[in-house]
Order: sequence, then structure tokens, then C-alpha cells
Amino acid sequence: MKAAVLGTTGYTGMILLRLLIEHPEVDKIIPVSSSKPGVPLSSIDPGLGVSGMEKTKSVGGETVSIEKATKLNPDVVFSALPHLASARTCEPFFGKSIVIDLSADFRIKDAELFRKSYGEPPPRVDLLDRAVYGLCEVYRDEIRKADIIANPGCYPTATLLPLYPLFKNNLIEKGRIVINALSGISGAGKKAELKLLFCERSENTSAYSPGSTHRHAGEIQQRIKEFAGIPKGYSLAADSHDFEVLFTPHMVPLKRGMFITTTVSLAREIENSELNSIFLDAYTSSPFISLTFDYIPQTRDVWGSNRCDIGWHLEGRTLILFSVIDNLIKGASGQAIQNLNIRFGFIETAGLRSYGEI
Amino acid sequence: MKAAVLGTTGYTGMILLRLLIEHPEVDKIIPVSSSKPGVPLSSIDPGLGVSGMEKTKSVGGETVSIEKATKLNPDVVFSALPHLASARTCEPFFGKSIVIDLSADFRIKDAELFRKSYGEPPPRVDLLDRAVYGLCEVYRDEIRKADIIANPGCYPTATLLPLYPLFKNNLIEKGRIVINALSGISGAGKKAELKLLFCERSENTSAYSPGSTHRHAGEIQQRIKEFAGIPKGYSLAADSHDFEVLFTPHMVPLKRGMFITTTVSLAREIENSELNSIFLDAYTSSPFISLTFDYIPQTRDVWGSNRCDIGWHLEGRTLILFSVIDNLIKGASGQAIQNLNIRFGFIETAGLRSYGEI
Amino acid sequence: MKAAVLGTTGYTGMILLRLLIEHPEVDKIIPVSSSKPGVPLSSIDPGLGVSGMEKTKSVGGETVSIEKATKLNPDVVFSALPHLASARTCEPFFGKSIVIDLSADFRIKDAELFRKSYGEPPPRVDLLDRAVYGLCEVYRDEIRKADIIANPGCYPTATLLPLYPLFKNNLIEKGRIVINALSGISGAGKKAELKLLFCERSENTSAYSPGSTHRHAGEIQQRIKEFAGIPKGYSLAADSHDFEVLFTPHMVPLKRGMFITTTVSLAREIENSELNSIFLDAYTSSPFISLTFDYIPQTRDVWGSNRCDIGWHLEGRTLILFSVIDNLIKGASGQAIQNLNIRFGFIETAGLRSYGEI
Amino acid sequence: MKAAVLGTTGYTGMILLRLLIEHPEVDKIIPVSSSKPGVPLSSIDPGLGVSGMEKTKSVGGETVSIEKATKLNPDVVFSALPHLASARTCEPFFGKSIVIDLSADFRIKDAELFRKSYGEPPPRVDLLDRAVYGLCEVYRDEIRKADIIANPGCYPTATLLPLYPLFKNNLIEKGRIVINALSGISGAGKKAELKLLFCERSENTSAYSPGSTHRHAGEIQQRIKEFAGIPKGYSLAADSHDFEVLFTPHMVPLKRGMFITTTVSLAREIENSELNSIFLDAYTSSPFISLTFDYIPQTRDVWGSNRCDIGWHLEGRTLILFSVIDNLIKGASGQAIQNLNIRFGFIETAGLRSYGEI
Repeated sequence: MKAAVLGTTGYTGMILLRLLIEHPEVDKIIPVSSSKPGVPLSSIDPGLGVSGMEKTKSVGGETVSIEKATKLNPDVVFSALPHLASARTCEPFFGKSIVIDLSADFRIKDAELFRKSYGEPPPRVDLLDRAVYGLCEVYRDEIRKADIIANPGCYPTATLLPLYPLFKNNLIEKGRIVINALSGISGAGKKAELKLLFCERSENTSAYSPGSTHRHAGEIQQRIKEFAGIPKGYSLAADSHDFEVLFTPHMVPLKRGMFITTTVSLAREIENSELNSIFLDAYTSSPFISLTFDYIPQTRDVWGSNRCDIGWHLEGRTLILFSVIDNLIKGASGQAIQNLNIRFGFIETAGLRSYGEI
Repeated sequence: MKAAVLGTTGYTGMILLRLLIEHPEVDKIIPVSSSKPGVPLSSIDPGLGVSGMEKTKSVGGETVSIEKATKLNPDVVFSALPHLASARTCEPFFGKSIVIDLSADFRIKDAELFRKSYGEPPPRVDLLDRAVYGLCEVYRDEIRKADIIANPGCYPTATLLPLYPLFKNNLIEKGRIVINALSGISGAGKKAELKLLFCERSENTSAYSPGSTHRHAGEIQQRIKEFAGIPKGYSLAADSHDFEVLFTPHMVPLKRGMFITTTVSLAREIENSELNSIFLDAYTSSPFISLTFDYIPQTRDVWGSNRCDIGWHLEGRTLILFSVIDNLIKGASGQAIQNLNIRFGFIETAGLRSYGEI
Repeated sequence: MKAAVLGTTGYTGMILLRLLIEHPEVDKIIPVSSSKPGVPLSSIDPGLGVSGMEKTKSVGGETVSIEKATKLNPDVVFSALPHLASARTCEPFFGKSIVIDLSADFRIKDAELFRKSYGEPPPRVDLLDRAVYGLCEVYRDEIRKADIIANPGCYPTATLLPLYPLFKNNLIEKGRIVINALSGISGAGKKAELKLLFCERSENTSAYSPGSTHRHAGEIQQRIKEFAGIPKGYSLAADSHDFEVLFTPHMVPLKRGMFITTTVSLAREIENSELNSIFLDAYTSSPFISLTFDYIPQTRDVWGSNRCDIGWHLEGRTLILFSVIDNLIKGASGQAIQNLNIRFGFIETAGLRSYGEI
Repeated sequence: MKAAVLGTTGYTGMILLRLLIEHPEVDKIIPVSSSKPGVPLSSIDPGLGVSGMEKTKSVGGETVSIEKATKLNPDVVFSALPHLASARTCEPFFGKSIVIDLSADFRIKDAELFRKSYGEPPPRVDLLDRAVYGLCEVYRDEIRKADIIANPGCYPTATLLPLYPLFKNNLIEKGRIVINALSGISGAGKKAELKLLFCERSENTSAYSPGSTHRHAGEIQQRIKEFAGIPKGYSLAADSHDFEVLFTPHMVPLKRGMFITTTVSLAREIENSELNSIFLDAYTSSPFISLTFDYIPQTRDVWGSNRCDIGWHLEGRTLILFSVIDNLIKGASGQAIQNLNIRFGFIETAGLRSYGEI
């Protein structure tokens, strides 16, 4: 199959290329650049080496324009462009190719919530209903039939996966859900900003956009409402929530890695063995979910893999959940490939790794 | 004055030496080693260079035995030994020198709580009443008169400082206090263990001893009870607490630095301006507390300093507190020097830095 | 085919398992432990996740004893054991399985040189003649027929690859070859030693075993003699050399990565274009050698790949060579797999990556 | 005394402020900004905390314009501005204040060499003769009388200090001097550039500007000529040199730290004990030079200090020199303070540390 990638200079685009190169079902890759077509991949990304040559031969190993990419009729288009730019640039592909959008443009169904988070209305309100939220382990059936797949944010992916089985079993008590999130610096993208310099991040840890102020807080809140079976029309104001999401992201000096610590109250007393069953039931046929039981997961174990490792600590009716992902893989490009696999009926693990690098 | 240091090979001991070298009121330093007396400091710690020579001249720049140190009559003894070993090794100095103990041996008044946390009864129950908890900003008056000062743990220091003014003003609602703590690796000490290797910690983040299972959880809980004016005789069982401390420490790839994110419910509605006043009032004469107001503190700002920077985010009746320290300075050796300054009536900032390294 | 791995707890063993899991021609993996048979891989190496299960099913996903491994008749045995232990433990496999030894035991033909470097005579002098030095790009023909393959050291691999084409073309002037080598910390192995702690290596750089004192200096010297066509019987004394190898390794705070800077005098004036041809000719059919021409290579570009990127800077008759590898891949486990591929007639790149992680 | 600092937002300026705050002889600090006067230091540099308040009280803790700074008649002006901008901006202070210039503007006496390195003629050729090269341990006597002090580059400082005693004793044989230099990332300054991002530098090592192409190569070459007593009028062309400087800098993932490995031939056989004497003689009254003898220095030992640690390895007539500094201290701001101390007759160590941080 033919896969086009929009946005090949950022970290998610660079990873997408690597994953597509390894993917057994993809034989042609079309790297697209609206701003700089005609540039050899090898000069954009020296780490790619000659690996990229084989599958991009048909376009001479170079980025092509949107127009040219459209004419090449890709089966699937991955967009690693920024929000707003993404939906707009994907325009020629809607209805022709399956679009897997790694930006936020189709993640949030509530137009007002999107506007609050991203400062503008959703760029394609008309397509929102056709888009499926690509959290693979939760929406597998919907993804199989989707033409537009909204690849989830990294924080929501890692946060929602341990919560989903609990909501499904009515185990979360109403009230506050305290989410403390740690992200590697690549989560902020490849941007020439002072605050992302090595000398500003090494030997440093900071927090930002706490409580309900981060864009991903809304994305998480929206899904939690859905998990909890609450009807759509809700506002973001903290006190109107049955489940108050308190999401505080931190930047820690990792290149890649995400560690989520979520503290919730359980709706009833529960034995640890029942928790085990609940998680096992929920994820028995999910090859990338790894339950760690009496071991607390660590980010290194999933570095480079598409895994989400989940562990927990039960103390009375308090449950502390731990979940780790590689923010660039399961939190972005890897999950996009997983969505490709689900959508096209490939083996779900095709082209993806299940072991962490050491 | 003459200062003895027990345990000069670990990180806190190494830092203590550096701080004492810079201290204007200390003219003699006696490095003590029960296991290896007679070793030149310069070979134990090449980073010290010739700095250590001047003030350790009287002992030839070498470690001395406990016996010899006793005869030299130090005015103050800093113990950077492990718990249990610390109280026992300090034996000859009690009653003669002021003892500032960086271990846990005198931190916990409740013998049962100590036993639960450290596996043995407190080594010197008889002296517990004489020991003062050296959280400088809170117990300054008691410290002035103390002969034994229990230097607080790094996590409790950084956690308690932002909570104290709130408790003092009856602002914390009963219930769960969710503390997410991030520590640099030096917090685990200088031990030849696989899990502390560069290759195990770089590009890795993990959590450990969550909920109420970390030793410092008990230390925090004990002080919170006191802050809240609750009488002493309590148990650690989570459901018997009015304030349930949920403390989850994480290791992040920093050498030094500690970031605490604490989520609490407030007992009443409050304006941010009132919070400002409460913190300003509490810490107006505390030179090492820095309130960051509309800026979220970061660990780099306090690296190498004795500062604790405190910030917060208010959302309805939810308050998210941020506090950062250098775990080896305000979290250990720096606070020990601050205790020295308070105890001996020196300027509180003597020998300590108020700026972070970049 | 069936592949056994001796030594699965160290970094090279852990990487070997990952590479074998991905290898299309290997269907059974036998993890061997002489000290701890019967331990599940998943507990030794949580990062492996379930990846290891499939191909280790036949041994229940557990380490087996040497005896059991012998009975399972592996086609190939990889030994990631320390030197001396390696040749001894491989004993039952010689003559039955192809042995690819990642230790130093068969790398050095000169028994005296081995003794100087490793403190004992080579453990199997009798087999030295049968062993082939597995520097794939140089000894491909010999490897195809070898029963024992001595996988080269990481430093020698990265140092020799840029030098080989120059020697082959008589371009190196006699005299001093100054090799400055930078290695990531994983090069020192997974050992509980103080000097390998995160807090000792982060924000630190050091050198060790300079000049001719590092074990790999002898390994390099031996091959340079061979490249230069000099007869075998030589001593290590610096002044008796036509080519004086000055090899100075440094430890830099990387997990993985090796950067070699080699300064040599050329035997004659040369144009850069001729150098280009010489390198292109030498490595035209070597898929893992990447020439970077007007770009100086960096370690990140090859992180996780089996590549060796080579660049240079020509200034008069002085040539500064740059070469980078991932010390755990091309410098150890990856080259071992490449040797497997060459020996068994598989595609040389099978199971190996040609792109660097970002 | 009153000290003005030009350029307070970069790393060297930030460090200068910290060192001046600690300096016992400086009672007023005037932070100057030509582009942004009137900005509180605390907002430019949150790590400074209240430390900066005391000594900058007279200017309200804010940056002032050049004009205002001139009127305040500083005794000394430190310029941490970029080259070319520095000499021009210091204009009003020449002849009135002692100027310690951390840029390259007065380092190179040879106008043609300056033009080659910096693309323009030296901005103040007329003042070049009055400027003294502030390599403290070598030019102490000249510095005592200088009105303009050209603070050396970080690489030249660390490279020249171990070479100086050898040249002084006619020990260096003519020919190639191979300098391999490793620098922490702060050496590149605080600039919003992609190549300086955390994700580009962590787990990465690269080289740049090798051979004679780095600006500091010329600065080193110029001093080596002087050390060797060779008359001034020389060109940079490599083959016209008696001493060919081959200088290859690398970037390693440190915030701060510089490691120089220099390989030279000695002019005659020498015992190690004689080398010891030569170095001891040269630096006996230099408090910041630390000779490490049988220990190879490491950057961590000097982190935060003004030390230069020097070690070596002798092998026949080959000498491998090791020297380490903190590039921001001895390589920039610390040496500037040392120059202040020498120029004004203060104790040479005033305000500077002799121990490394751990």
C-alpha cells in the first residue's frame, strides 16, 4: 500500500517514516512538504540513512508537494502537522484516502471546548462526526470503519488507558481525579525555543498548565465523560463536573517517555485480585497493553515500543494508577500505525515493537 | 567554631564539607570516619581540591576516628550516617556537643511509627524528647534551644513548607492530600546498586513506595497531624486519618533537585490575593523561602541553593501547590547548616547560597 | 534456525535477545544461564515484555542450563559472557554449533599480547587459529567459512573501519596515529560500581587507560599491523612500531554511542575527491557503512542501528577521521548478528536497522 | 567597588552576576542592557532570587542603559556581549573604567587572523596594543597594569595552561600538536537554535570546525607562537607552522564542563619526576591550578569552580595532556573575576570557589 506523510521534519514525522520503513504492508512512502517540496529525505534527516531510499524510490527519495501527493493516490495519509494547519492541508485527501491525523483537529467533538483549548473553532466542524477517536484499545470497532482517525494526544492516551476498565466497571467514585503527568522533552516538539534548550532542561524539572488549563485536560475530560456514560452537553467549568479532572503536566529531562500517576477513589471496597481480573478482561486481546501487577512500570521498559505498561497500588478505597508510554510511539506515531493496522485489517502489531530499548 | 562531620564519603557528607569550608563562623572542620580514619580528604573527594586543607589543617587534612574527634571537643557534630548507625555513633557527643543528625533517628516521635518505617525501634528513645525537628522555618524557636536537632528528610521538607501556612490558617479541608514527588537520583545516596547506574536512570522515570509505604510518608503524616493540632496518639492506618497523606515519590534523571506537586481541597472559598497574604505573612522573615506567585517554580532555579521556591494554582476550592528544593541542600546539608546558624545565633544565611546554579 | 544466547543479564545479552526476536531467520531462541537457569526472561528484563515469549516458547520463556542448551543443539551460540569465562563456558558447543563470541577470548592471535592485556594466557590457544576476527566489512570472506567468530571490541570496530581503506591504499604515513575515543557508559557493562552511578557520570567526562594501556589498544594495534602488511611477530613496546597507536578513551554521559576522532598523516598529497573514491570503492557493497562527506557524523544518527558513519576533514597531508557507532549494536550485538547473517548466507541486513533512533 | 555587567541574559552574564554577588570587594553591581533597560533582574533570571537585590539596590534591581551606567562611574566593566558588539558597546568606558572583555574583540593581536576568524577587522585596532590577554596564570604581571583585559576563550584557556610550562622549558618538539576538545553545551551560548535543543543534544555527541577551522584554533596558535618565542608576523597556513595546531572540538551532553586531551612529542627523553617538577614550578603560586599526578582529571571535579585540573600520561617521548575546566567559570566568568582580583590587587581567590560541585 501507499502511505503519505505530511510534516516530515518534526519528531513525530521522523518517527512515522521509520515505522513505515519497517512496516511489512507498506511498499511506497510519499513524504509530503507543502513548504519545501523537492528536498531529499537524507538531508532532512541524516539519521534515516539509506533506509528511506527503498520505499521512497518512486518519488526520488524527496519530499513532494501536496498536489503531487494527491495525484499519487495514497491509500492512507498521516498528518503530523500542527493543529489547524493539519485539517486544512489534508483537504484534498478527505474522501479519497484514509486520513490519520496526529493533530488535535478531530479529537474534540465539542466545538466550544475546542475553541477554548485552541483559540479558534475546529477547522472542519462538518467532518467532526465522521472522525473516530483513535484510542485503539477502546475504539477498535469504530476505527475499523473510519475514514478520518483522530490520533489521540500523548497525555490522554497514557491517562485514559488505565482508567477505561475502571469506568467500564463503575468503579470510579465521583469527585476528583488527580493526574500527575511527566513528559519527556520531545513532547514539546522540535522548535527553536529557549525553554527547550539542553542547558535549560538538563538538571531541571518544571510543571506547566496545571489543573484544567492544559489542552489535553479537555481532551481527557471529554473521554472520561463518555466513559462514565454522561451525555455530551457539558461545560469545562470545574465545579459542574461529576468527575473533576485535575491534570498537571511536568517536563522531566528525558528525550522520550511519559509517566502518569493517577489517584482516584473507588466506588466500593475491592480486592486486588478483582482488580487484576478487571484489567485482564479489558485488555486480554490488546497486544500492546502490559499489566505489571506487583512491579511499578518505568518509562525505560517501553522506550521505542508501542506498549502502554499499567500498574497500580491499592490502599483502602484509594487507587493509585501508574501508566507509561513512549510519547512519540504509543503517544503519537506508533498509535497512528496501530490505527492503520486496525483500519486496514493488518495484524495489529505489524511494524511495531513490543520491547523497550535499553 | 569547631565542626565535626561524621560520614564524609556520601553525597550529604561531601556537601557538608563544602558548606563548612565556605562558612564564615566555622574555622575548624573535623572529618570523622569510624571505618577508615587516617585517609586524606583529597583522595576521598578529588573535587574538594585544596579547599579542604585550610580548615582541616589541625587534623592533617585527614579523617580521624570517633575517639580522636571526641577529644577535639567539637562545638557541633553533623552526622551524615545512615539511620540507626547515626544515633549509635553519635553516642560520645550527646551532652557535650550540639548534634545535628541528618539521619531519621530523631525525626519521628512515635516509636511505633519509627519501627514500622525503619524495621527497629528508635535507637535512642530516651533522647527523643530532647530532639527538635529541624524544619527551620517552622520550628525556629525550638531549634534555638535544642541540643539534638533532627534534620528533616528531603521529601518532608519540600512537602511541609507549602502546607504549613495553610494549616496554620485552617485552610485545608479534611480528606485526601495527594503528594506527587519527583526526586533527583542523589536522593538515593551514593551506593553501588544496579538500579542507580547511569544506564538504568538516564532516559528513565519510575515511581516507588507509593501511598503510605515510603518512610517519609510517616514523617510527613506526623507533622501534618501536628500542624492540624491533632493530639499525638494516632495510628498510621489510612482510614483513621482526618488527613490522608498519599505520597508517591518518583525518580527522575536529575542529579539534584526535588519537585513536589501537592493537591488539596480548601476548607472555604478564597481569593488568590488572600493566599498571597497568607504565604507572605508566614514566610516574611524566612530568607530561603521564595514565593513565585504567577510563575511555577522549577528545580533549576534552586540548584545549589538553600532555597525552597513555592508556587500554586487555585481552581475553585482546589489548590495545587508546587515546591522545589535542591534535595542535597535545603533537603539535607544546607538545612543542617541553617540549623547550625539558628542554634548558634549566626545570621541565618551564613555560608549558604540564595541563588541557583545555571 | 535455533540460536542460543549465553549471558542474558548484561546489556549486550539484552540487546542480542531483542535483535534475535526481530530476526526473520531465527525461530527459536535459547537463553542460557550457567548461574541461574530456570528464571523467566520477563523477570530478568521487564523491557522485553511479551516479545520474548514467542521464540522462547520451547524453553518455557526461561533461562536454561548449559547442559540443557547443549542438548537442544543450537545452530549458533552467541556468548555475551566476560572474557576467560566465555571461551570456557562455550566448551560444549565448539565443533557442534557456530560460536560467535562477543568477548575478547578469540580476538587476539598473539598470546603474549593477550596475556599483557587480560592478565592470563588466552583460554583456548588451541582454537585461536580456527577463530576469525568478525570485523564484517574487512573479513567477510573468512567469516563465511568460520566456526568460531571473534566479534570485535566496540572501540576497535569504530576505529578500524575508517582506517582500513586508507591502509589498503598505502595512504597512511608511518608514525603516530592519534585516536581519541568517546564512549557511552553502557560500554562499561552493567555492573554495580560506584563510578558508573548516574550521579557520578551525569555532568561528568573523564578519560582512562590512555596511550597504549587500554586492552583495545592492543587489539587495534594488531589489526593495523595486519592492514599494513607487517609480519606478525611484534611486541607492544611503543618505540618498536612503525605505526604508533595512541588510543585514549573517554567516558561521556551517553547511554549508548561511540565517537572516534583519529588524526593521521598521509603518505602523499591527495585531493578530497580521490579520498571519496577510495572510501566509496572500499565500502560500496557494505550496507552498514555510511559515508557522510561534507557533514561530520554524530552518534545520534546511528543510535540503535548497525551503521558505522564515517566522515573526514583533510588539511594538507593531515587527515582527521570521524567515525560513529552505537557501541551496543555495531560495537557488539548488532555486529554479532551481521556475522550470523554472513556466516549463514542470509541477507547481510536481516534483523538489523539502518536508521538511527531520534 | 562598583562593577558593571554588560549582557546579563546569556549564561556568562548570569554567572558573572552570581560571582559578583559573592565577591567580598564588590559592593555595587550595575546590570546594563542596551536593548532592554528597566527590566528587573528577578524576571530575567528567576534563579537569582533575592540574592541580586542587595548589591543592585542603587539601580533598583533593574537593568540600566549604557548612558546611565556610564554616569554611575563603575570601577570595572565586564562585557559578556558577543564579539564586535562588545568593543563597540564598551566605547564610553574605555579610559574611564577597567574593561574586562569576555568577547574575542581584544584577544587576537594579528588583525588578519582576526578577520579570518571573525569575518571583519578587529573593531578597535587602535586599542589592541593596550589590551592584555587575560590568561591569569601566564600574564599575571601584565594584567596588573592593564586597562583592557581580553578574557581568553574557554578552549584556549584549558588548552594553553598545560602546554605553557612545557614550552617554557623547551620541551615540545616541533610538529603536530593534536588537541581533542570536549565541551558542554553551554559553550555554545543561550541561543534559540534547533541544534542546541535538549532532544538534539541528549544521547548525542558530535564534532565541529576541526583542524584549523575553529575560531579558537587561531587564538591557540597565536599564543603557542608566543610561548615558543617565535616572532609575530606569521600566517595561519598549516604548513608554514613549526607547531601545527590540530584542534578538534566536540559537543558532549554536559551543561558545563570542558575536557581537553592534547597529544605532543617531547623534544627529549624525560623522567616523569622531572615533569612533576616542571609543572610544580610553573604553578606553585597559582591557586586554581591543580595537578592530579597519577589520577586523570574529570570535569565533575571542577564543576562550578575556577580550577583547571591538569594531568598527563607519558609514554616514551609522547606526552598526552589532560586538562579540565568549567567552561563558564575558568573558561569565562570566573577567569574574568580572577582578572579583576589580579588587576585590583585583591586576593586572587576572592569570590571564587576552589571545589567542584557534586
